[in-house]
Amino acid sequence: QEITGNKFGKGLINIEAQDSSYSMKMGLRMQSLFTSDWGITEEDGFGDAESAFLIRRARLKFDGYAYSPKLKYKVQLGLANRDMSGASEFTRNTPRFILDAVVMWNFYENFELWVGQTKLPGNREQLISSGSLETVDRSLVNSNFNLGREMGLQLHHETNLGGDFLLKEAVSISQGEGRNITSANLGGHLYMGRLEFLPFGDFDSYSGGDLDREATPKLAVGVSYAYNNNAVQTESNAGDYMLTDTGFYQTDISTLFLDAMFKYQGFSLMGEYGHRSADDAFARNSDSSLTGDVVNIGDGFNLQAGYLFPNSIQVVGRYTTIDLDDSISQVVENQYTFAISKYIAKHKLKVQTDLSYTDMNLGLEDGLTYRLQLELQL
Amino acid sequence: QEITGNKFGKGLINIEAQDSSYSMKMGLRMQSLFTSDWGITEEDGFGDAESAFLIRRARLKFDGYAYSPKLKYKVQLGLANRDMSGASEFTRNTPRFILDAVVMWNFYENFELWVGQTKLPGNREQLISSGSLETVDRSLVNSNFNLGREMGLQLHHETNLGGDFLLKEAVSISQGEGRNITSANLGGHLYMGRLEFLPFGDFDSYSGGDLDREATPKLAVGVSYAYNNNAVQTESNAGDYMLTDTGFYQTDISTLFLDAMFKYQGFSLMGEYGHRSADDAFARNSDSSLTGDVVNIGDGFNLQAGYLFPNSIQVVGRYTTIDLDDSISQVVENQYTFAISKYIAKHKLKVQTDLSYTDMNLGLEDGLTYRLQLELQL
Amino acid sequence: QEITGNKFGKGLINIEAQDSSYSMKMGLRMQSLFTSDWGITEEDGFGDAESAFLIRRARLKFDGYAYSPKLKYKVQLGLANRDMSGASEFTRNTPRFILDAVVMWNFYENFELWVGQTKLPGNREQLISSGSLETVDRSLVNSNFNLGREMGLQLHHETNLGGDFLLKEAVSISQGEGRNITSANLGGHLYMGRLEFLPFGDFDSYSGGDLDREATPKLAVGVSYAYNNNAVQTESNAGDYMLTDTGFYQTDISTLFLDAMFKYQGFSLMGEYGHRSADDAFARNSDSSLTGDVVNIGDGFNLQAGYLFPNSIQVVGRYTTIDLDDSISQVVENQYTFAISKYIAKHKLKVQTDLSYTDMNLGLEDGLTYRLQLELQL
Repeated sequence: QEITGNKFGKGLINIEAQDSSYSMKMGLRMQSLFTSDWGITEEDGFGDAESAFLIRRARLKFDGYAYSPKLKYKVQLGLANRDMSGASEFTRNTPRFILDAVVMWNFYENFELWVGQTKLPGNREQLISSGSLETVDRSLVNSNFNLGREMGLQLHHETNLGGDFLLKEAVSISQGEGRNITSANLGGHLYMGRLEFLPFGDFDSYSGGDLDREATPKLAVGVSYAYNNNAVQTESNAGDYMLTDTGFYQTDISTLFLDAMFKYQGFSLMGEYGHRSADDAFARNSDSSLTGDVVNIGDGFNLQAGYLFPNSIQVVGRYTTIDLDDSISQVVENQYTFAISKYIAKHKLKVQTDLSYTDMNLGLEDGLTYRLQLELQL
Repeated sequence: QEITGNKFGKGLINIEAQDSSYSMKMGLRMQSLFTSDWGITEEDGFGDAESAFLIRRARLKFDGYAYSPKLKYKVQLGLANRDMSGASEFTRNTPRFILDAVVMWNFYENFELWVGQTKLPGNREQLISSGSLETVDRSLVNSNFNLGREMGLQLHHETNLGGDFLLKEAVSISQGEGRNITSANLGGHLYMGRLEFLPFGDFDSYSGGDLDREATPKLAVGVSYAYNNNAVQTESNAGDYMLTDTGFYQTDISTLFLDAMFKYQGFSLMGEYGHRSADDAFARNSDSSLTGDVVNIGDGFNLQAGYLFPNSIQVVGRYTTIDLDDSISQVVENQYTFAISKYIAKHKLKVQTDLSYTDMNLGLEDGLTYRLQLELQL
Repeated sequence: QEITGNKFGKGLINIEAQDSSYSMKMGLRMQSLFTSDWGITEEDGFGDAESAFLIRRARLKFDGYAYSPKLKYKVQLGLANRDMSGASEFTRNTPRFILDAVVMWNFYENFELWVGQTKLPGNREQLISSGSLETVDRSLVNSNFNLGREMGLQLHHETNLGGDFLLKEAVSISQGEGRNITSANLGGHLYMGRLEFLPFGDFDSYSGGDLDREATPKLAVGVSYAYNNNAVQTESNAGDYMLTDTGFYQTDISTLFLDAMFKYQGFSLMGEYGHRSADDAFARNSDSSLTGDVVNIGDGFNLQAGYLFPNSIQVVGRYTTIDLDDSISQVVENQYTFAISKYIAKHKLKVQTDLSYTDMNLGLEDGLTYRLQLELQL
């Protein structure tokens, strides 16, 4: 056994070459989750609890720079069954093991070119690492609208708008089929852009909770727009493939996100609006008959506020609503969540629990979900 | 290249933080196996040999402590195809890559709470690492009765009963569906307990062979009991799913293990008895007709003795019998194994070979199996 | 963070034990590929471009020695979906995650015994790492004829034939079913041998391009022969399984390779001839009717030449032809490739691009393929 100067929370291994020719941080993390679910109907009240244990996420991550500090890399692997997602004909019948495999080149001033697979410049909730959330997991807005990761190119840049006012810009071109796809590209590509405004200076705008207890108010406002040319899935680059009698139904799908993060002295507020539209949401066969598949066009909104007590216990309230376009579905889903987190070592070691009530209209079954999660990040 | 003070057999990397905020050992191991099988019938004698090469196991392991020496973690990944087991609808169509992902918290005196997926407090053969066996692989008792790994909670404790007499206790509550399951919990949970008595003091009771050549006699006697509430598989949390016309057949399944390990001056003796019973072993449809699936209730017994010569060559004899309940099957399987191991660097580098004769009753085909395995653990 | 004396290109971690009891190099690499394809017909000219992004390969590698410098090991894992290949009934329904898992024992003089899974002593293109190619990927000769990796035994040896003249010999016995197979061996085993002659002394004969700018002419000439006893796949240990009404069609398949590599002052020339023959190429049912499956017997030839300019830009021209036996197919495929590589840090960091025209006879659709790849090896 050897002694290292590295500390907990900074990677299992964290090294830099003496000649500055490379650096490497190897990290490992896992989430152990317990869930209990109850269905609720007006006639019968609470149904039987369904409870389960789950390794929600377990990941191995390598990042650092190579050859020159201007050339960064990141490789992240999803080890847990729930995290990998299954094999399909579009992934060569292999699990989606790689999350990130990307090289980031700072080729000029503060321009960076990203090559490979990583998160698209999408919505804030998605861009916050699943290990830095202030609730057990992300909201329904994210699961319904996010565009996740894709292989392709991204260009990132930062502009100082005067004083502390910062603008972060990103554009991308990618597959448009979701992550880890090995089959030929279907339809056209996905084009995406994001602007993030930070009027009161830079801060940790992509992590849940104000764990740093910002001394002055900090705000970040973001807007992202994605255009998926000739998309073939019901949620742009995710959801179900829309098959017709002659192949895949193709339609242009747009996704818009507006989001904001505010932090001040332990108080944090995060809001997010998602909107999906399509050129023609209804998949049709060659004779114009409907196939039954529809693009999930519509809106989602999430708002959550939290306060961190000095003893590192945080309370969070969250309200989420999902309202698909009436032409698609009359269902409106409202969810109310109350969460408590104990940050033992900030996001690196924490216990999180939340209780969510899901309220459905049209007499559909409501639901209550209790979750308890232990997270360790090395 | 850098020089490390670490040695072979102690992990590829083995570090501890100067501030005692974490430690990490990264290990790698692999088993290369050659097998040759012959079927034997009374009329035709020996059939043609079927021989094959196999990477039997290859694993990557991370363990150590995080935040405090009282909070240990372990993550182990199965890399080999034979070791992973296949994707199914119950694992989100992904391979069962994670073996262990567990956090162990010493929260009070010698109490430890385990959270995550790891081996249940089951039978001795299962608890002995597959890398520390004195034969090429475990016995038929283990493959027929063991409950392996599950996600859930475990509570471990040690009691000193006076003098050298030690008692180790463990209880667990877990999914009841086997490891890496992502689908909702089916039926109820699995509750398990284990007691291990060590009357002559602690020793390496979970490793094959007396490689330490104990100077005084050492004995460990264990008993484990598991109750799987509303189990849906033919071997409690393993085997086949019992489908009916309306879903899954559910019945309470109990598993009992009695086991012992004795070591003295190079001599080792290990015995194990396994017993499975069920509330109603016969799966039925809603109209009471039999589905054909049955719970594999019955008994198994394994006894093996070995002697380690001073030149690190060990001989082992093993007798195993599997006798399912007569209501299920009249088959009785007896297996006789003779094994030789050369421990080049104890269990870290060894060559093992064994020859097993499997004797079936009812005129079924007997079998002869020859195995040769090289194991390397870094 | 700690400072390491290791440098970029020598592994993420590269350590040796003070007591020479083990060493370990952990490497990581990835290839980000962009491809654009056009079909070309005589009537319509160029078809629409089909373009796609792909993580072509991403790999984690561990190698070094264990216990003694005479006992080397290598474990390599394929992380990318395109690299793993899919699950099947022959791999226990798990992805083919392990590429190499092998122990190499220098047991006597310059004899080495290899145990486990790794590349067979096959054709040169296959033996050149996919990370050390002078084009974006290997030629059609390799994809049609190579025997890849298998589990089994190999014996390697070197002979000095006088002066600088070196002879490298290797023989192997392996499964005959391809890599990562867990099912019982089908048919017989695969026996392979390779001789490599290096008349002007040793050099880096298994890497593309003359990146070392050899001061004197260097030549390597190799010949490999493989005999797959009772093979059941259309390409010996790869391709499709040949099913009949009674099981698998079995026939002896032979594969022959002749190859050469020449390097001198930045100029490199590589040639390779592959030939497959079978005892009876036509799979038949028990009543002698044809099943439709045939062994892909025939010939392939590849010749490529490159020149490396002093600014580390290399140009390569490649000609490949695949001509299956006329009894199987009248198709002849000719491919012409022009490639340019910029070696930023030799093969460790490079950008490669190539353009290939595929010319088919019999009026079949021709094709044009453009590829651009970024490779990083840590």
